[in-house]
Amino acid sequence: MLKFEEYVEMASQAVAAIQYPAQPAGLYEPIAYTMALGGKRLRPVLTLMTCDAFSGNAAKAINAAVGIELYHNFTLLHDDVMDRADVRRGHPTVHVKWNDNTAILSGDAMLTMACQYITRTPADSLPQVLETFNATAMEVYEGQQYDVDFEQRDDVTESEYIDMIRLKTSVLLGCACKVGAIIGGAGKDAADALYNYSCDLGLAFQLQDDWLDVYGDERTFGKEIGGDIANNKKTFMLINAINDATGDDATELKRWIADCDPSHRADKVEAVRNIYTRLGIDKKAERAIERYTSQSLKWLDTVEISDQAKTAFTNFATMLLRRKK
Amino acid sequence: MLKFEEYVEMASQAVAAIQYPAQPAGLYEPIAYTMALGGKRLRPVLTLMTCDAFSGNAAKAINAAVGIELYHNFTLLHDDVMDRADVRRGHPTVHVKWNDNTAILSGDAMLTMACQYITRTPADSLPQVLETFNATAMEVYEGQQYDVDFEQRDDVTESEYIDMIRLKTSVLLGCACKVGAIIGGAGKDAADALYNYSCDLGLAFQLQDDWLDVYGDERTFGKEIGGDIANNKKTFMLINAINDATGDDATELKRWIADCDPSHRADKVEAVRNIYTRLGIDKKAERAIERYTSQSLKWLDTVEISDQAKTAFTNFATMLLRRKK
Repeated sequence: MLKFEEYVEMASQAVAAIQYPAQPAGLYEPIAYTMALGGKRLRPVLTLMTCDAFSGNAAKAINAAVGIELYHNFTLLHDDVMDRADVRRGHPTVHVKWNDNTAILSGDAMLTMACQYITRTPADSLPQVLETFNATAMEVYEGQQYDVDFEQRDDVTESEYIDMIRLKTSVLLGCACKVGAIIGGAGKDAADALYNYSCDLGLAFQLQDDWLDVYGDERTFGKEIGGDIANNKKTFMLINAINDATGDDATELKRWIADCDPSHRADKVEAVRNIYTRLGIDKKAERAIERYTSQSLKWLDTVEISDQAKTAFTNFATMLLRRKK
Repeated sequence: MLKFEEYVEMASQAVAAIQYPAQPAGLYEPIAYTMALGGKRLRPVLTLMTCDAFSGNAAKAINAAVGIELYHNFTLLHDDVMDRADVRRGHPTVHVKWNDNTAILSGDAMLTMACQYITRTPADSLPQVLETFNATAMEVYEGQQYDVDFEQRDDVTESEYIDMIRLKTSVLLGCACKVGAIIGGAGKDAADALYNYSCDLGLAFQLQDDWLDVYGDERTFGKEIGGDIANNKKTFMLINAINDATGDDATELKRWIADCDPSHRADKVEAVRNIYTRLGIDKKAERAIERYTSQSLKWLDTVEISDQAKTAFTNFATMLLRRKK
């Protein structure tokens, strides 16, 4: 196994080496722009690490790794159009810098480019890799659709929410590991175990994101706190609060949900945070994060890979969940 | 070889047999709606015919045929959002019946479903089929981008226009044949010849569409005449007229292009038609249609397939271009 930073370097270099035709510029420039915005390259790193753990040869999975990163960035590009998000990683989103049509068409092209990279997989594992990738992609769209649907509903349960974020964000992390495992020559059980490892890790990560929006420290979190509260985003926190609140808490929560006056933002964030704390939603989230984290790590015990590889995956989890207040 | 109607029936049944998960309905209903709108199923028919011509077994290519039809309908779905087209095949488009976000997300899912079907190709031809399909998909996006770019330009040449429609519409017809040929076991030269046959045929078809918008008969053409003229759509006709017109014709054409008053529509269509006729653009288009048609049919002479198969492809071309005034 290599050092974590070496996998990141390998993934970053491969992403930077993607060739974009010069013409038509209106199609390819937005793709190059999106891919150059950076990001943590977590998914390709997982693909490379997993392939390395089973075969001792991370490079075998480099094209699949790039394909998965292209796919991830395609979903962000189209999600930003749908969510009318103006900023991504500190830069204007494609539909702001160009326009909606450009974002749609360049996103479509990114999805096909992702397929082109995924297809550059050794022929013996190609059918299995494509099956995993395409099935995962379908789940990601389903997750996005449920996310949209949930914004129109007031009776979403915690378990429905978990299922939604599993589809919308976790399965692609799972896929990143599974594809690396398949290319690395892992058996079905081992590939599935690594899939579950990163899928559960993804759930813990998303729940931590929900928690950090309420209890995080802006200086270390890196983005403004309270955005989910201000926008009534149906997170783990809000869904549980709606379901658990009674009496005055329920009345107050309803009142704040109805109040979207930007000048009340700070008061709203503080008041809703206090409701969450009174209802113990903070502790509930922390317990869920711990549960999914430990579940994630347990999958590693079932797989026959070197202790060095197990340590690498454990360290990856620790690194991912290090972000605290 | 089967009868033309039998290939259509085979393709239609396979498209009708696509299984859509029930949930989330917001994702899958628009896809089922789009695929049920019909259309001529030309692309899957070409895939089945070509596979049959080389292997005597059309069914081998049925999944690839469905995948290409899904892809074609995905491009229409996203194009309709970008073009703000409200009606497709006599029914409201997805972004009108649902909304833009639904059209974007369901379109994305259709593209991945297309890949899933394409991937269900016999393993020995899978890498070559995927390479052909993905490269074609990239060309289709490029064609759409050039089409958008051309609407902002006044100096588009005929040859640029031909290159654009080749990318936007013809290469997918070419791909439909080539994929069928590959699955049917054709050699590279034969697969490329069939690709060129349907690519050139696609050019003739698109140029005929441009001509029919001006000189067609609404009763037999099936859609309103003059839409391209009314919308200043940069077709083969308008591009050549802009480039060829001098003196009074040039002045009059410019004046009509600037006049988008809906109440002047009928006058505009008639006046621009008269300019086209005076400049001989009608004859120019007819000559180009004939040239691409005969070029298309010549490719068939280079391929070793049965006379029955050659007749079937010749009849397909005749049927496609039968639409006259």
